[in-house]
Amino acid sequence: MALQAAGRRSLVDTVVDALRSQLTAGEWPVGSRIPTEHALAEQLQVGRNTVREAVRVLVHAGMLRSRQGEGTFVVSTTDPGDIMRGVQRAGIRDVLELRIALEAEAARLAALRHEPADLERMRAALDAQAALADAEGQPASGSLELYADHDVAFHRAVVEAAHNTALTATYGWFSSSVREALVGYLGDRAMPKVVHGDHVAVLEAIAAGDPEAAARSIRDVLEKPKQAVESLLAGR
Amino acid sequence: MALQAAGRRSLVDTVVDALRSQLTAGEWPVGSRIPTEHALAEQLQVGRNTVREAVRVLVHAGMLRSRQGEGTFVVSTTDPGDIMRGVQRAGIRDVLELRIALEAEAARLAALRHEPADLERMRAALDAQAALADAEGQPASGSLELYADHDVAFHRAVVEAAHNTALTATYGWFSSSVREALVGYLGDRAMPKVVHGDHVAVLEAIAAGDPEAAARSIRDVLEKPKQAVESLLAGR
Repeated sequence: MALQAAGRRSLVDTVVDALRSQLTAGEWPVGSRIPTEHALAEQLQVGRNTVREAVRVLVHAGMLRSRQGEGTFVVSTTDPGDIMRGVQRAGIRDVLELRIALEAEAARLAALRHEPADLERMRAALDAQAALADAEGQPASGSLELYADHDVAFHRAVVEAAHNTALTATYGWFSSSVREALVGYLGDRAMPKVVHGDHVAVLEAIAAGDPEAAARSIRDVLEKPKQAVESLLAGR
Repeated sequence: MALQAAGRRSLVDTVVDALRSQLTAGEWPVGSRIPTEHALAEQLQVGRNTVREAVRVLVHAGMLRSRQGEGTFVVSTTDPGDIMRGVQRAGIRDVLELRIALEAEAARLAALRHEPADLERMRAALDAQAALADAEGQPASGSLELYADHDVAFHRAVVEAAHNTALTATYGWFSSSVREALVGYLGDRAMPKVVHGDHVAVLEAIAAGDPEAAARSIRDVLEKPKQAVESLLAGR
């Protein structure tokens, strides 16, 4: 099989795709060593430099790992970039539901595992929000962005209070991009108002060590933007 | 700033790291165009070919996108590979909890959105499992792997019945790797027995359109391996 560059895509891109297909098809299982540069260059009928560049791409993508003097090994048969692209292609409603899944479980675990410093961080974020609010509990128009930053900090503190590195890593991407996507989608005006008391209820349930109440109360907070999105979708 | 190759890492790797740092620091926001190859080569004092290779790595990683004649644009300021590495570094308990988060929400949504074909796929997986079971409802020793495949198929069908592409994409990685990790961790003998009736309860709750019961019943299924892992960790 001789690979060729197609259009604007370079030969390296084509070799990346070929190797990725072999990986995702499970041809080389996790932990196994892939063929040498020399063997791959022969198999694909391309130069060794091209193979080396393609392998580098897949090492950075988190699918392969090179060990000096030992060769290149399979770390994952799934392309993390694919997962990310799948999430990015998803609609805003779908992404919000994924966020609810992660935060509701995090709140449940936070009720069981929080440390004093976790509660302090949540409280600090809510106090900072309260300081920006007017008599009706809403942020002044000039402080919307700062208010939103404290909101992100509060939700992040809840997730980190679960003390689960897998949840925290997966949530990392959402905490910033979801808010951006929501504002882009609904516009600042149609964004549901953040109700201070709703957030306080989350903090209290976690502090009280009540997993069910913690999950329920953070779900109440997140259902509002979801309903706003669904109304807008239904009205089209 | 002149970058240099350090040890086994090539100059391209070093340039990838430099660009990724600028991206994750938010120096170039999502949607913006990054400087030209020429400008980056000058700034980092490396050759244009090196910059081109590094950009290719970040395009494949899902952080950048090149548009012919227009330049290279920022798609994400988070490296999906980082998230994956974070999840891979996490302990088995953490990964199981992430799986519970995704599946419990999926089951809840599946109760509201399933289509007849979804229920058929769940039922087919459970029927296939039942056909492999002995009088005590346990799979014969020779059919353990096939039995586990049907288990994966059932859980995947539940997640897909939520009709949420973001959940499905994120779950994709877990459905295979979590079981591998569990068997590797607990060994086949310590794996908690799969109870047919527990799975039937999930299917019935989804079919009945009861989101709370669906979430609760799939949580019951997944709490068993989690408890097995926790007992083993506590016994150390």
